[in-house]
Amino acid sequence: MSHNTYGHIFRVTTWGESHGPGLGAVVDGCPPGVPITAEALQRWLDRRKPGQNRYTTQRREPDQVEILSGVFEGVSTGTPIHLEIRNQDQRSKDYSEIMEKFRPGHADITYWQKYGIRDYRGGGRSSARETAARVAAGGVARAALEQLAPGAEIQGYMVQMGPHQIDRSNFDADQIEQNPFWTPDPQAAQDWAEYLDGLRKSGSSVGAVIEVVARNIPAGLGAPVYGKLDADLAAAMMSINAVKGVEIGEGMAAAALTGEGNADEITMGNDGPRYSSNHAGGILGGISTGQDIVVRFAVKPTSSILTPRATITKSGETTEIVTKGRHDPCVGIRAVPVGEAMMAAVILDHLLLDRAQTGGIRGPIG
Amino acid sequence: MSHNTYGHIFRVTTWGESHGPGLGAVVDGCPPGVPITAEALQRWLDRRKPGQNRYTTQRREPDQVEILSGVFEGVSTGTPIHLEIRNQDQRSKDYSEIMEKFRPGHADITYWQKYGIRDYRGGGRSSARETAARVAAGGVARAALEQLAPGAEIQGYMVQMGPHQIDRSNFDADQIEQNPFWTPDPQAAQDWAEYLDGLRKSGSSVGAVIEVVARNIPAGLGAPVYGKLDADLAAAMMSINAVKGVEIGEGMAAAALTGEGNADEITMGNDGPRYSSNHAGGILGGISTGQDIVVRFAVKPTSSILTPRATITKSGETTEIVTKGRHDPCVGIRAVPVGEAMMAAVILDHLLLDRAQTGGIRGPIG
Amino acid sequence: MSHNTYGHIFRVTTWGESHGPGLGAVVDGCPPGVPITAEALQRWLDRRKPGQNRYTTQRREPDQVEILSGVFEGVSTGTPIHLEIRNQDQRSKDYSEIMEKFRPGHADITYWQKYGIRDYRGGGRSSARETAARVAAGGVARAALEQLAPGAEIQGYMVQMGPHQIDRSNFDADQIEQNPFWTPDPQAAQDWAEYLDGLRKSGSSVGAVIEVVARNIPAGLGAPVYGKLDADLAAAMMSINAVKGVEIGEGMAAAALTGEGNADEITMGNDGPRYSSNHAGGILGGISTGQDIVVRFAVKPTSSILTPRATITKSGETTEIVTKGRHDPCVGIRAVPVGEAMMAAVILDHLLLDRAQTGGIRGPIG
Amino acid sequence: MSHNTYGHIFRVTTWGESHGPGLGAVVDGCPPGVPITAEALQRWLDRRKPGQNRYTTQRREPDQVEILSGVFEGVSTGTPIHLEIRNQDQRSKDYSEIMEKFRPGHADITYWQKYGIRDYRGGGRSSARETAARVAAGGVARAALEQLAPGAEIQGYMVQMGPHQIDRSNFDADQIEQNPFWTPDPQAAQDWAEYLDGLRKSGSSVGAVIEVVARNIPAGLGAPVYGKLDADLAAAMMSINAVKGVEIGEGMAAAALTGEGNADEITMGNDGPRYSSNHAGGILGGISTGQDIVVRFAVKPTSSILTPRATITKSGETTEIVTKGRHDPCVGIRAVPVGEAMMAAVILDHLLLDRAQTGGIRGPIG
Repeated sequence: MSHNTYGHIFRVTTWGESHGPGLGAVVDGCPPGVPITAEALQRWLDRRKPGQNRYTTQRREPDQVEILSGVFEGVSTGTPIHLEIRNQDQRSKDYSEIMEKFRPGHADITYWQKYGIRDYRGGGRSSARETAARVAAGGVARAALEQLAPGAEIQGYMVQMGPHQIDRSNFDADQIEQNPFWTPDPQAAQDWAEYLDGLRKSGSSVGAVIEVVARNIPAGLGAPVYGKLDADLAAAMMSINAVKGVEIGEGMAAAALTGEGNADEITMGNDGPRYSSNHAGGILGGISTGQDIVVRFAVKPTSSILTPRATITKSGETTEIVTKGRHDPCVGIRAVPVGEAMMAAVILDHLLLDRAQTGGIRGPIG
Repeated sequence: MSHNTYGHIFRVTTWGESHGPGLGAVVDGCPPGVPITAEALQRWLDRRKPGQNRYTTQRREPDQVEILSGVFEGVSTGTPIHLEIRNQDQRSKDYSEIMEKFRPGHADITYWQKYGIRDYRGGGRSSARETAARVAAGGVARAALEQLAPGAEIQGYMVQMGPHQIDRSNFDADQIEQNPFWTPDPQAAQDWAEYLDGLRKSGSSVGAVIEVVARNIPAGLGAPVYGKLDADLAAAMMSINAVKGVEIGEGMAAAALTGEGNADEITMGNDGPRYSSNHAGGILGGISTGQDIVVRFAVKPTSSILTPRATITKSGETTEIVTKGRHDPCVGIRAVPVGEAMMAAVILDHLLLDRAQTGGIRGPIG
Repeated sequence: MSHNTYGHIFRVTTWGESHGPGLGAVVDGCPPGVPITAEALQRWLDRRKPGQNRYTTQRREPDQVEILSGVFEGVSTGTPIHLEIRNQDQRSKDYSEIMEKFRPGHADITYWQKYGIRDYRGGGRSSARETAARVAAGGVARAALEQLAPGAEIQGYMVQMGPHQIDRSNFDADQIEQNPFWTPDPQAAQDWAEYLDGLRKSGSSVGAVIEVVARNIPAGLGAPVYGKLDADLAAAMMSINAVKGVEIGEGMAAAALTGEGNADEITMGNDGPRYSSNHAGGILGGISTGQDIVVRFAVKPTSSILTPRATITKSGETTEIVTKGRHDPCVGIRAVPVGEAMMAAVILDHLLLDRAQTGGIRGPIG
Repeated sequence: MSHNTYGHIFRVTTWGESHGPGLGAVVDGCPPGVPITAEALQRWLDRRKPGQNRYTTQRREPDQVEILSGVFEGVSTGTPIHLEIRNQDQRSKDYSEIMEKFRPGHADITYWQKYGIRDYRGGGRSSARETAARVAAGGVARAALEQLAPGAEIQGYMVQMGPHQIDRSNFDADQIEQNPFWTPDPQAAQDWAEYLDGLRKSGSSVGAVIEVVARNIPAGLGAPVYGKLDADLAAAMMSINAVKGVEIGEGMAAAALTGEGNADEITMGNDGPRYSSNHAGGILGGISTGQDIVVRFAVKPTSSILTPRATITKSGETTEIVTKGRHDPCVGIRAVPVGEAMMAAVILDHLLLDRAQTGGIRGPIG
């Protein structure tokens, strides 16, 4: 990952600002012959798009994706696929305040310090609107995965909102699409609704933890020691707006375990190795084991809140700011489809990298 | 990061196996004119080298580094610096057990599944011996940083061993070099010594959390949206052996905060912006703020333990394994200098990247 | 360079097909604060655009560029600049012949063999229409160069059409913009007009040699031994459609020289080293000397001709093909602005790379 | 290619100076299971090594390669292969002259201007000794090619020395290994011997043209539009010391052809497409056709000659220099195995890249 591009073989370059004419992604290195339609990509974009319920920003963006290249007669040609989304609801408003003041917790001050110029309208390039391009590209990755790793599934969901974690004994995957929080715990969904309503009304915000799982992924993906699958996943997730922590398997909790407690014992099953547990999150030595690949990431609370905060102006005066505007009280919610998209892209990329070096042929066991 | 190389401009490629003839790093893209001597690099290597106390593996490796290129008359020439360490203590032993059986928690099975061949002696390429090359390269990065960011400091320390966290009110930076655990809390150092003795004697192991701080780093480093400084740090730390989680600033705990609680308010100081707190860990929108850059990572417990664990053989039979050999009861200890090295390399790399694009000139405030 | 991206720091990714909705370039890594307008870019695009005289394809494309991101209030922000050109004149026609038959000399057969699918309309991705995106991106590079290397000039011109070379003693830079062939030799311009008219009428085509010179470029650009300035220039020029050879300075003719004949002797001038000649083409050991950087490349004759040629069909039958359509009798003409664009992008990229590693500070002489 | 690394998947990083302790190559991304021995690599190195006859430098270097990692029980493991060659004959001599004076035609002045420091002993990093590392790495590429593209052959030879071209009607591949010039024309070998003896005795030097052919390479290698096979070949060859021009197929001569003259007509053979000729040099649209891949490059005359040349000193005085020392009167001779090595590495790399994106499956014809 560097600049505005990620991926080694399956490579995605995104462009666009929050309040510019639009945004997009050039998806390069996609295998040829993958069925791709705007409709199929739209399905993924619709899950992320704003204004779908009272918990997400009320900006009205249809996030309609247009395919401008790389797809011919319904399938990918192997050449760059350009996905474009034009912005619609760039509400004309008075930007004079955020033009002069740096919003705490936002990238306003760092963009200014780095570049000496910034598109202050809605955060410009640092806005989470950029993630629409990730989701569109992730849709292409999913379509390619369907061909290359049949049975592969990628699913994200929320496991914590503010201090409230889900009860894993309530875990029901069918619930995930049934509530605005993408949570598998129906009780949590109910509790969080009330909790978030309160925060929203008071103009506050809260963080969240998202878990993304990739199932039925072949063993052997990942390239030690710096091209590790988990290193790429960590970078991919950390690059999502507002993410402050990334975990694989046990994650930070692994520190508290003993060697016995952390061991995923192996026995021989009918169709290959079986593991007694998955503390490793499906990755050993940077290479996938064939178990579920489990990644979690923490999203900080939305920095735009109604409580006044101290800040400074471009001319160096200390002042206060209240960030009005249309914002998400918990940006973590819309991070769920984004995390899935990053997982899909990274897994596909490593499938392609693995078949480059090894031909995708596995060392035999048994 | 890809294959066995990391970095964009300051680029490090490592090679070598645990029980082969040696290991090394090619450090490319180093600025010219940086004073580099084997002695100075040795200082950093000595902090990581095994066998220094009863808490680290008893393998005897002097880890003596030789500079084979790229340094002339004591300073870097701008051409690749090759650092080489020959292995000394490749104890001749019977490898027949681990040749046939996959040690749970190790990369044995995944290397086999990916490559269909593996150097099973001591873990081969997946051994933590590789990190000696990182530390050597990190020494070069530190020397270059001294010139490009005078006053920059990079310091790592242990903040948790097993379930035992340090008491932040005991934090004393001067203590870090005074105990075998690199911990700033003298009370924790005492408690952990006893705790780890117990684990060592019982042939068990435990995880740890390391924190690495970079101080006096200029604002403006990092390149959104995929070349973010935190994305590169996440990948760098996750690529270290046995790491399962990476946090920036508040990390996973950010999820539990509200927007008010997480806000780092800004006021104008004499020499630039001042922040009321550092929940962000010194990075906003992927770009450094000038505050301390704070990264934490969790190291899982050493997988080699004396308790028998179920596993399978290459020929597909379920069996048991006990991993004897010379191992660390808490590999987290030796991960401290490794984390520092990765921090130094990433920061330097982003300094160079920033001066490429912007010339290192900052947008004026005030 | 890889996939559809070139450049290290100043990085350009292009997309689009000849007869799709459009094409574009994402220009990433541009220094901030560079004045960029659609009008200024249009100036460069207009030099390449088709249908300007009877010697270039009669396809009517205004090649109007739209800037969709990365420019705010008239200057670059440091974030990706997306340049887009919508296709206008995708004349509806019968593609059934080239859908089934592979045109000799075109990429039809290799795209088919590689991808198993191809957008056969007008050559799809392999069409020279892609070079419009290069020229647009080159315009951004020129604007940045103006700031970073004041006085830098990049100029391309034709030095050979078919077997007819210019007479260097007629060289008059002011003539270059005065004739449809971008040639500095007014006599050649006259002769070639007649020559090319004959070829055009007979449905034939011919090759050409283009020379591109970069003047007032600082010494010190280029990074041995694989990041050499000339290696990047060679790749950049060879990547242009129909190019079959690239030369630096003396080029292929260097083979025939002796050491004495090839020596560029150095004396000390008032403002630095002076060279008695420039056989080296401004590059020694992969690094610029400060002399003119001189690159030449050969463009093969347009493969689309009216004389029937043997070829095969997708179903494997030998047949014949005549390529009608709107084509250039000498594609070399429109390659002039493309070569300039590639030169500008490579030079800028190496300026940025150099300032990354060395800070752009030169070793003092005298 | 960037810095001191080339290749995308099969990636080679070299290090080392002419008169330092040694040099080497880290070969990363090699497929696992490839038989590799020091003896087999030595065979290729012996073809390049100096002092083999009176036409190459009399420096005595055995160029003995040591494999320090990445090979286990005789085959590659998929992890980095480190190849190391220690320098032996760093004749102690007086470097005071070239320490102060820049040799014309050498990289002395540009290294100084870029880095402000240079290892002046024997040219340091810019010495052609670096190419020993290329040849060693090329040996690994050849071994891998043998597995992945059975029947693939790579052969280089000299087609021009000074102004004297071979007579293509004398072409006899069996002659190539029979003369010190690697030329297929026995008459040329005889003539050149006399010619070069004269030059050598007078302390002069001369350039050469090398042709490298890759036979039996599958169609479909190369990735438009910037990852073209010919773009990578051009960069690879141009990166070799003293190379000033690169041609594919017809090369610069393509400019003089008409469309009819340049057409490689296609007919259907028993085992696929057949071409009436190979003006394209085996590459169309940046992708291999399955024909011979034909690359030529020009090597300039050795810059070290006995005739005094004007130059300047570090302190800015104009003076004269005569370059004594042990040099090749025609460095082109030893460039033959180097060109082969670069061809092998690029072809292998593109085989791996192609199987990444497409799985190596070809679109069917017939």
